[in-house]
Amino acid sequence: MTQEEEEVVLLDYWPSPFGTMARIALVEKGVNYIHKFEDLSNKSPLLLEMNPVHHKIPVLVHKGKSICESNIIIQYIDEIWKNNFPLLPCEPYQRAKARFLVDFINKKVHGSSVKVWMGQNEEQEDGKKELVEWSKFLEEELGDKLYFGGDEFGFVDIAFVPFYNWLIVFKTFANFNTIEIECPKLVMWGERCLKRDSVSKSLPTSDQVYQAYLEFKKGWSHG
Amino acid sequence: MTQEEEEVVLLDYWPSPFGTMARIALVEKGVNYIHKFEDLSNKSPLLLEMNPVHHKIPVLVHKGKSICESNIIIQYIDEIWKNNFPLLPCEPYQRAKARFLVDFINKKVHGSSVKVWMGQNEEQEDGKKELVEWSKFLEEELGDKLYFGGDEFGFVDIAFVPFYNWLIVFKTFANFNTIEIECPKLVMWGERCLKRDSVSKSLPTSDQVYQAYLEFKKGWSHG
Repeated sequence: MTQEEEEVVLLDYWPSPFGTMARIALVEKGVNYIHKFEDLSNKSPLLLEMNPVHHKIPVLVHKGKSICESNIIIQYIDEIWKNNFPLLPCEPYQRAKARFLVDFINKKVHGSSVKVWMGQNEEQEDGKKELVEWSKFLEEELGDKLYFGGDEFGFVDIAFVPFYNWLIVFKTFANFNTIEIECPKLVMWGERCLKRDSVSKSLPTSDQVYQAYLEFKKGWSHG
Repeated sequence: MTQEEEEVVLLDYWPSPFGTMARIALVEKGVNYIHKFEDLSNKSPLLLEMNPVHHKIPVLVHKGKSICESNIIIQYIDEIWKNNFPLLPCEPYQRAKARFLVDFINKKVHGSSVKVWMGQNEEQEDGKKELVEWSKFLEEELGDKLYFGGDEFGFVDIAFVPFYNWLIVFKTFANFNTIEIECPKLVMWGERCLKRDSVSKSLPTSDQVYQAYLEFKKGWSHG
């Protein structure tokens, strides 16, 4: 096998929650990889070639082939490096449930977070209300477990922790601290996750997230 | 195990492409199930209980537990009845690729089809152009293979065939026959799929699809 075929490359953008998920999964599995950061206002020819359909990060390039979409990347990582720490449960119903929650997070939690970031007045308030509703739902799913899958950190934790990080940023940015009051178990879960090496090394800081938001807002208002 | 725990129930709506996918997967696996059809303008308490987040069909109820979202249902079916005809490939890269294409079909092909159904003038024309683009992309992915996964019918075929059926309906409804001219391999693939028992038993007829469209349009204009 040539060096290029063995190589694992992640095309990424540091503040992206979806990029963060791929990073956490790779660290959990102990995979060495080359990190290539994209300028999203001037995407590289490599990104356009490796994700010709969506032109979006993250893209994992392994053995010269590309894998796109964060939830598909995490499942691929779990299936390729399967002898290390498992990310998805073994049992089919638990796997289906984990996939459902990740899909829920990527659609609903992400969608409402974008409303809080980019919306004004009523739309922003709607986004906040929705985030409280989704957080309560997720807290109920978590229950008294340490992590969403039980005793071990896994797929759903990886998908939610970047958005939990956004909730922290929203505290100062959008005067939003309802989650702390309404979802104490979720906050304890969040603190537990933040202590993991894979998470603390992969999450952007609040400042980086806020900086990215300002850049996006500038770009979007131009667009 | 009680009778209820053994039971497989599918909450469904006959003309739905997502419901169709679940039906095809169950027939391919030879699973006996109870079919419950929903009136989408007056959803049953069972549907609201079994899919409390999205209130959408299809929902698979197995051993008293619910599995939601068509692509997750198909993967669950494949993992539970794993000794029968496999629906997903074994190899991780091929699995990732199949998941990517199914996601592409559910987002892009479905989105553009809805534009053709519901849009007017320019929006409808945009939808048609997009459908030609997506069909060409899928034809390239298919290449000279019998099915998307190779020699055997599987996950991607199940996800695309209900929308291929829509393309046939669009021929008369929206004066749209570009696919036949531009994508001859895809048309041959479609004809091949339509000959399978699992597909021919599960697909709604053109008339049923058109009837459902009229009902939706009525409902949506009220909403």
